[in-house]
Amino acid sequence: MATKKLGKQTVKFDHPPVIIATATTVGPKEGEGPLSSYFDTILSDDLYGEKSWELAESKMLRETVKTAVQKANKNITDMEYMLSGDLLNQLMSASFAARDLGIPFFGLYGACSTMTESLSLGAMLIDGGYATHLVAVTSSHFSSAERQFRFPLELGNQRPLTAQWTVTGAGAAILASYGQGPRITHVTTGKVIDLGIKDANNMGAAMAPAASDTITMHFQDTGFTPESYDLIVTGDLGAIGKEITEEMVYDQGYNITKVYEDCGLMIFDNKAQDTHAGGSGCGCSASVFCGYIYKQMLEKKLNRVLLISTGALLSTTSAQQGQTIPGIAHAVTITNHI
Amino acid sequence: MATKKLGKQTVKFDHPPVIIATATTVGPKEGEGPLSSYFDTILSDDLYGEKSWELAESKMLRETVKTAVQKANKNITDMEYMLSGDLLNQLMSASFAARDLGIPFFGLYGACSTMTESLSLGAMLIDGGYATHLVAVTSSHFSSAERQFRFPLELGNQRPLTAQWTVTGAGAAILASYGQGPRITHVTTGKVIDLGIKDANNMGAAMAPAASDTITMHFQDTGFTPESYDLIVTGDLGAIGKEITEEMVYDQGYNITKVYEDCGLMIFDNKAQDTHAGGSGCGCSASVFCGYIYKQMLEKKLNRVLLISTGALLSTTSAQQGQTIPGIAHAVTITNHI
Repeated sequence: MATKKLGKQTVKFDHPPVIIATATTVGPKEGEGPLSSYFDTILSDDLYGEKSWELAESKMLRETVKTAVQKANKNITDMEYMLSGDLLNQLMSASFAARDLGIPFFGLYGACSTMTESLSLGAMLIDGGYATHLVAVTSSHFSSAERQFRFPLELGNQRPLTAQWTVTGAGAAILASYGQGPRITHVTTGKVIDLGIKDANNMGAAMAPAASDTITMHFQDTGFTPESYDLIVTGDLGAIGKEITEEMVYDQGYNITKVYEDCGLMIFDNKAQDTHAGGSGCGCSASVFCGYIYKQMLEKKLNRVLLISTGALLSTTSAQQGQTIPGIAHAVTITNHI
Repeated sequence: MATKKLGKQTVKFDHPPVIIATATTVGPKEGEGPLSSYFDTILSDDLYGEKSWELAESKMLRETVKTAVQKANKNITDMEYMLSGDLLNQLMSASFAARDLGIPFFGLYGACSTMTESLSLGAMLIDGGYATHLVAVTSSHFSSAERQFRFPLELGNQRPLTAQWTVTGAGAAILASYGQGPRITHVTTGKVIDLGIKDANNMGAAMAPAASDTITMHFQDTGFTPESYDLIVTGDLGAIGKEITEEMVYDQGYNITKVYEDCGLMIFDNKAQDTHAGGSGCGCSASVFCGYIYKQMLEKKLNRVLLISTGALLSTTSAQQGQTIPGIAHAVTITNHI
C-alpha cells in the first residue's frame, strides 16, 4: 500500500535521503554570471576539447559525476544507479556518459524538468531500500540545444525577446541513505499540462501552468504554505514564465512572491549578458541547485527549499505538425532540519 | 540502507508488486502475425484516424492505457503514476498521452528497453510504498520510427537483411500493491554496454552485449540458473542478436538455449512476413509481454519468466558524428508463485 503517500501527488519519505555531495560544470557565459563563484568547473571553451558540442556535453556530464563522487569521498563503483537525462535526442549526453562510467543506468526524459525527475526517483530508490548511494545528474548545452531545437548557430538567427538562453551546464547530486547534508523529505510528481502555447521561443509561458499546478498540488497535499519555505525556486521559467506562475499560484490562494525565485533568472545577469528572458535547459536548475543553492544550504543561509524543475516537452516533430508544447514540473523539498 | 539489494545490480522486493491487468494495441502487420489472437486491439490502418503516424502512436499508447485500466476494474484517476516512454524524440507519444490522461508522469528513455525500465521503476514505486496502483506503458510505430531514425518511407529504400522491423504496438501493465496476478519479484538494472557496432541496420548485434551482460549479472546476483525459469525472453534482438546473446551468455557459464526466446522473433513469421532479422521497438517486448506472455502466465502455461527488454541507444546525431551505438538491457522476474 501507498503508506508514504500524502494527498494526490506527493510522497513523504520515512528515511529521507541525504544529498551528501554535489558538483557542477558550466560554460564560459555561465562562468561570467552572478553565480560564478559557486561552480566547481568553468569551461573556457564550450567544445571542452571534443570534436562536437554533443560530445562536449557528454564529457561535462561524465566529469561532473566524477567530481561529485570524489567530493563525497566515494568511488564510481559505489554508485548503484545513475539517473540521468538531457535535452538531446535519445539522451546522447547521458547515454554516452553512462557507458563511460559503467553505472547501472535509468535514462529519464523530462526536458528541463529532468533534474527534479532524477532527484525524485533517486530519493524513492534510496528511501525504498534499493540503493545506499546513487547519482542524479543532468546537463544541457547551448550550442547542441540550439541546433537540435531551433536553428544552426551558423545561420546567426535573431532571437526574440521572449527567448531563453539554454544553459551550458551540468549538475550532479550524490544521494545516500545516511551521512551529512541536506535531506529530501517530500516529492510532488507533476502532470503534463498544456494550455496551448505553440511558440518555441516562449518556453516560459508553456511551462508556467505546469509549475503552478505542481506548486499548488504540493501545498494542498502537504499542508505546507509559502511560509514553510526559505526559498521556492522554479527551474527555468525566466522572466515571463515566473510572472505567470506567481499569478496562477496566487489565483489558487497562495502568495509565494516573498520567497520565490527562478534559476533561469539567477544564473545570468540578463541586462549585462543579453540573455533575454533568462536561462533554460536541464543544466539550468541542475547547476543552480547543485552549485549555489546546495552551498547556501550547507552554510545554513537557506534551510528549507522547494525546488521545482520545469520542462517544456517540445519536439521539432510535434512543432512541425502544428502541435502545442506540453509542460511538466516536479517539486522536491530539501531541508537541513527534519 | 539497500536492504533489498542482491549482489551488484539486482533488487528483490519485500512485497512483490502484482501485475493485475495488461492491454495491447498493435498495427495491421502485427495483427497478421502468429501472436494475433493475444492482442486486445488490432488496427486496420496504422494512421488510426489521426493526421500523422506520431499522433497515431500517441493515441495507441493512450487507448492502451485506458483498456488496461478498464480490464483492471479501475479508473484513470486511480493511477498514481504513469511511467512511460517511446522511441520518438522528446517522447512525443508518451508526453501527449500523459497530457490527455492527466496521470502524474515520469518520462523514461531506454530505447527498446523502455518496457522493462518502466516495469523496474514501477515495481520499486509500488514495493517502496509510494503508490498502490500505477501504469507502465510503452509504444513504438514502424512508420514514425523509420522516418525519424532511417529514411522517409516515401523514398522506398531497400532494407538490408540484418535490419529489424519496428513493431507498431503498445503494451500497458497495471501494477498494484495487492490483487491477483503474476508478481514482479526481482529487477536487474542494466549498464550501458558498447562493443563498437555502428550499423543502424544491425541493432541486434549492438544490443546483444548489453543483454548478455544483464542476464549474466542477474544469474550471478540472484543465484538463479537458466533452469529457474520457464522462459527467458529478450526484447527485440532478432535472429542475429539472439544468437550472439546465447553465445555470450554461454561463454559466461550459463546455457540458456532450452528456455530462451526473443520477442522480436515471436511477433512476426519472418519468412512469410518478410521482416528480415525480426521485430524491434519499445512496442515489441511491450506487446509480446502484455499480450502473449502475460496471458500464458494467467493460464499457468508459464510460471516463471525473465523478461529482458533491450535498447539500442541510437541517435541520428551520434550516428552522423561517426559514433557507435551503445546498448542497454533491464531484466525483470515475473512469477506466479513466490
